[in-house]
Amino acid sequence: MSFKSPNAADRSPDLVFASDNSAGAAPEIIEALARASAGSVSAYGADPISRSATGRVREVFDHDADLHCVSTGSAANAVALAALADPWGSILCHRTAHIQVDECGAPEFFTGGAKLTLLDGDNGKIDPAELSRAVRHRVGDVHSVQPQVLSLTQATEWGTAYSVDEVRALSGIARDAGLRVHLDGARIANALAAADCSPAEMTWRAGVDILSLGITKNGGLTTDAIVSFDPDLRRRLGYRVKRAGQLTSKMRFSSAQVDAYLTDDLWLRNAAHANAMAQRLADGLRSAHVEIVAPVDTNMIFCRLEAATVAKLRNSGFVFHYGIPEPGVARLVTSFATSTESVDALTAAVADSSGHG
Amino acid sequence: MSFKSPNAADRSPDLVFASDNSAGAAPEIIEALARASAGSVSAYGADPISRSATGRVREVFDHDADLHCVSTGSAANAVALAALADPWGSILCHRTAHIQVDECGAPEFFTGGAKLTLLDGDNGKIDPAELSRAVRHRVGDVHSVQPQVLSLTQATEWGTAYSVDEVRALSGIARDAGLRVHLDGARIANALAAADCSPAEMTWRAGVDILSLGITKNGGLTTDAIVSFDPDLRRRLGYRVKRAGQLTSKMRFSSAQVDAYLTDDLWLRNAAHANAMAQRLADGLRSAHVEIVAPVDTNMIFCRLEAATVAKLRNSGFVFHYGIPEPGVARLVTSFATSTESVDALTAAVADSSGHG
Amino acid sequence: MSFKSPNAADRSPDLVFASDNSAGAAPEIIEALARASAGSVSAYGADPISRSATGRVREVFDHDADLHCVSTGSAANAVALAALADPWGSILCHRTAHIQVDECGAPEFFTGGAKLTLLDGDNGKIDPAELSRAVRHRVGDVHSVQPQVLSLTQATEWGTAYSVDEVRALSGIARDAGLRVHLDGARIANALAAADCSPAEMTWRAGVDILSLGITKNGGLTTDAIVSFDPDLRRRLGYRVKRAGQLTSKMRFSSAQVDAYLTDDLWLRNAAHANAMAQRLADGLRSAHVEIVAPVDTNMIFCRLEAATVAKLRNSGFVFHYGIPEPGVARLVTSFATSTESVDALTAAVADSSGHG
Amino acid sequence: MSFKSPNAADRSPDLVFASDNSAGAAPEIIEALARASAGSVSAYGADPISRSATGRVREVFDHDADLHCVSTGSAANAVALAALADPWGSILCHRTAHIQVDECGAPEFFTGGAKLTLLDGDNGKIDPAELSRAVRHRVGDVHSVQPQVLSLTQATEWGTAYSVDEVRALSGIARDAGLRVHLDGARIANALAAADCSPAEMTWRAGVDILSLGITKNGGLTTDAIVSFDPDLRRRLGYRVKRAGQLTSKMRFSSAQVDAYLTDDLWLRNAAHANAMAQRLADGLRSAHVEIVAPVDTNMIFCRLEAATVAKLRNSGFVFHYGIPEPGVARLVTSFATSTESVDALTAAVADSSGHG
Repeated sequence: MSFKSPNAADRSPDLVFASDNSAGAAPEIIEALARASAGSVSAYGADPISRSATGRVREVFDHDADLHCVSTGSAANAVALAALADPWGSILCHRTAHIQVDECGAPEFFTGGAKLTLLDGDNGKIDPAELSRAVRHRVGDVHSVQPQVLSLTQATEWGTAYSVDEVRALSGIARDAGLRVHLDGARIANALAAADCSPAEMTWRAGVDILSLGITKNGGLTTDAIVSFDPDLRRRLGYRVKRAGQLTSKMRFSSAQVDAYLTDDLWLRNAAHANAMAQRLADGLRSAHVEIVAPVDTNMIFCRLEAATVAKLRNSGFVFHYGIPEPGVARLVTSFATSTESVDALTAAVADSSGHG
Repeated sequence: MSFKSPNAADRSPDLVFASDNSAGAAPEIIEALARASAGSVSAYGADPISRSATGRVREVFDHDADLHCVSTGSAANAVALAALADPWGSILCHRTAHIQVDECGAPEFFTGGAKLTLLDGDNGKIDPAELSRAVRHRVGDVHSVQPQVLSLTQATEWGTAYSVDEVRALSGIARDAGLRVHLDGARIANALAAADCSPAEMTWRAGVDILSLGITKNGGLTTDAIVSFDPDLRRRLGYRVKRAGQLTSKMRFSSAQVDAYLTDDLWLRNAAHANAMAQRLADGLRSAHVEIVAPVDTNMIFCRLEAATVAKLRNSGFVFHYGIPEPGVARLVTSFATSTESVDALTAAVADSSGHG
Repeated sequence: MSFKSPNAADRSPDLVFASDNSAGAAPEIIEALARASAGSVSAYGADPISRSATGRVREVFDHDADLHCVSTGSAANAVALAALADPWGSILCHRTAHIQVDECGAPEFFTGGAKLTLLDGDNGKIDPAELSRAVRHRVGDVHSVQPQVLSLTQATEWGTAYSVDEVRALSGIARDAGLRVHLDGARIANALAAADCSPAEMTWRAGVDILSLGITKNGGLTTDAIVSFDPDLRRRLGYRVKRAGQLTSKMRFSSAQVDAYLTDDLWLRNAAHANAMAQRLADGLRSAHVEIVAPVDTNMIFCRLEAATVAKLRNSGFVFHYGIPEPGVARLVTSFATSTESVDALTAAVADSSGHG
Repeated sequence: MSFKSPNAADRSPDLVFASDNSAGAAPEIIEALARASAGSVSAYGADPISRSATGRVREVFDHDADLHCVSTGSAANAVALAALADPWGSILCHRTAHIQVDECGAPEFFTGGAKLTLLDGDNGKIDPAELSRAVRHRVGDVHSVQPQVLSLTQATEWGTAYSVDEVRALSGIARDAGLRVHLDGARIANALAAADCSPAEMTWRAGVDILSLGITKNGGLTTDAIVSFDPDLRRRLGYRVKRAGQLTSKMRFSSAQVDAYLTDDLWLRNAAHANAMAQRLADGLRSAHVEIVAPVDTNMIFCRLEAATVAKLRNSGFVFHYGIPEPGVARLVTSFATSTESVDALTAAVADSSGHG
């Protein structure tokens, strides 16, 4: 069986910049998935492909970590948080964190009713001073939920990336106060591709206990994963994943995606491409005198556009979010599948629409 | 349990009869999945493939039903039950039901603590007289959980299948008492393939409100589904699926599996093959004077084997469960991928081992 | 049996202004409780005293309401909110609401993980414009919790009271958007005593669906209550109260407290006394040039005190909170049991400490 | 069921044998409660009476135990079980246990969805062989809930009492398998009064980790309690009680009940009286040739009565349960308040009704 690359037959450039989850899957991952189908194997993860995927995770992260495939990033986050927080815990996160604004309360559901405490900070990054106050809030007071988990998002909802030093500093504040650290890595590949550090340095060496490893947005099909750096969580994570209805029987098909994703740096190559496309787009927008409102660290651009410009672009077939996270701001997202033709088409259209062509 | 490595070059027949989830995926579904990757589409189900899948469900079930893809049958069951039962409800099911014995409490978790009330009945089927008593148990008594949902399994954990009349009778008892009806259809294709009725007749026309539609065991890779026949559940099912971490962003890849599964009767053809292999195996076992302890309605055989026979078979490479659900009984499961060679190899080995060759 | 009034034997004035729950119980309620012990009666509320209490609630609120005694205000709030909100709901409340800051996540627990959305507004009152925005926030978007309940606190955590018009306006905004309305009436008696309106006008006639009726702080011992104005909630409230471990067997002893509390306007008389003591204290503080930072509508005063003054007062035996809700601010609470001697002692001590005597 | 109005002027003997919670409160406890009202004290347990109650518990149980007052036995059970069991745990209890049949799913709710596994055994006592099997059931299997807690009821729902040796043996089986042990002591005073052992011997010395201490049925008004013998549970019990809406502000009024209950052996004297009344009643019934179907160890009698006899007794004003736990069986319960006149009146009426007078 042979698969064509997404868009191979497509002559006109793709005009969708709505999200990296608008893209199809990486051909390498589809091929791995097809190969995985041969023969009978044990269900629920006791198969060679699943062993290979775990091995790959351990090699890439340089840690005897545990891997749990789950079907979405929300599931990864919610199960991970539930493993770290008591029901009376509070989970400290940025006000714009996906766990707060885009998961319909899944963290509250999975934790048995823990509370998310919202912190501020520029460009989607938690302000260390805010965190320092929050970790000491009413500790030991039975009337209040108790600070127990710091949840960082890497890259952030603003497309910015914490440096390793920033992750280490925030984790340090949390750990010194007895909190655990969760990293929502829906776009960690993009952050790693943009940084000069190893996956280990960005995660457990910087104080992260558990990672939601994003795969779908960067080339996967139907799986994301939990990577746990804390062996004490092993047992309870297994039960939590099962109880969440997230333990798939034909696990090989989830594992195959993880395995291919981490093989030959596919994840980093895909992310680097997406990042490069974002840089190219940012350059083009700047040339068209468009204001970019947050640092373009990874694969998301937030820029100020007139409503009239937006209308023209949409009329031309471009698809993207506008008014998120604030009025007048457009969000443009590139992916592993974004082509230079697409980027250049958008740049040209913006320049044309805004009269700076 | 660990099977041998999947190996495309393997010429010898597959010896795995452990479960239908030991098999790989149907080629038609893998191809559909690969095709689905082309181009950018909207996430979360607003894409043409997802629309097609819903259309296929509606056509097949002859009902304006709702489709929600989820990653496992446990998720389908738990979310469906939570949509039907209050936290103070009781869910009536057979003592051997998957929701009771194999889901690590997922139904209790998703419902907010509803209780499963266990009913008896031969061959995995609920006894109508038991059900009639149970639906009236302490109704209106605030100290007791309240009968709210009947959950049937089709085919049952014993591989038997309820007839449409039996489904209708049990549903009728439940509905007359004000209960809702859930059908755990992890193997509904096998039951349908064995019956002379339409999917509609087996489900909503027989009183079923909501169906867990099994796909994985019968050729799928990473998805099962909830099919709801009650439009009033639409809104809450959407939120429940999302909160469960089960709303996948690249929904097209789940929908493509459903779509291919229901196209050109693939599901029924796959199931019919599995059933036929089970019949062939049952015939072979009977010829070898092996006692079969439950009717072989679908693709599972429960038969009595000596421990010595089991040891010999396992030494020869055969893989299957023994001692489930009771000591001395082996469970042999066929799938869409089981070959006549595999069946005949097992029959011969049993005959040989037990001295009836 | 005859009971002495609290503090009867106490010669020196009580110096505790920490909270109205520092006080003992009203003699009328203790006497009712003692009387209730005679003879055998049915458990769980099927007794004459419980019927009388329900009758009293219905008379006082001029509504065929349901009464559920529970052991705390937190229980009343959490059970009431759970009856109104789906697990994927959001409950809109003031940033300083008791349900947010002082219940250790009980609302999240009882609702199955609903989210509290925090609104701002001066003096503890929700700003109507904030509410208008919040009720429309991402309605119908499956990725977000859904606005379902408005929870008002009367009197507020700042001791201020909403006017009936304000309650009606806020409830109207909520109801027009399809939300339900909960009133945390831990101090509703104080608000009623300060207002020129009936209990009905302050609650269901102003759009309130369900009320947490505070009793403990205003003379009760061990019970608060839920009063539901929505007959459709009846069934589920009963099960929720039971499941919460809040259905007491010797219900007569909870009901007797409610019954006595509502008899001969005891609740309003007690509250009026507490309010009058707060006014007297406020007048005294103003005379001592102490800045009072929020309107003194009921029985709580928030005033600015120097740390040195606070230290002197505490050395003299006065007990009160300082630094809540913000640094430099003291909270002084009066109760039904506060004497003019106590108030005057505090006024004198403040004047003396701050050099304005 | 509705009894006659309590009436101080009633000269005729009380005819209620429905439950020990039909009785009023012990005068000693009401007096303690009235005394507790004097003066201002700290809320939430930081008061002298609460300290005294804890001291009393520690003295009586000869253990540095923790005391948490809660409003019902169901709350004590549910919070205690939630502190011991993970959400994926299974709680082993007798099929007739109160936590299974009479708490509307409160244990499932509080534990986040743990499962109750039902064990059989004569006269309401768990069969050790059943327990031995159950503690090993699918341990470590991620698909199944995991045995984590043994919950014993003392005295049982059949009025029988485990001997200390029996408690120790069952606890030993559980603890050897890594389970924790909860004792539902709704009627532990009755069991202690009937046994020749200390409270310590019956509980923590016999392997009990946590106790639901019944108070209401044996003379209290509005409180039961959790007594924890495991210091590691301290922190989480505090948060769980608060989150349950069970941390009362005027804690002195709950503590006063506990304090008086345990002072001067009131609890044991009350229970001994109830037991003696049951023995007297059993003797009378036996003289009237009534079959008593379970050992009368404490204050409950289960006896076989004709429906006609029951009708006559009820016509005469006697109140009791019939048909629980099985058809043809009446349950007769005595309490601390039951008089010999009441017992003798019932004996005479039975003898008369059944023709053995």
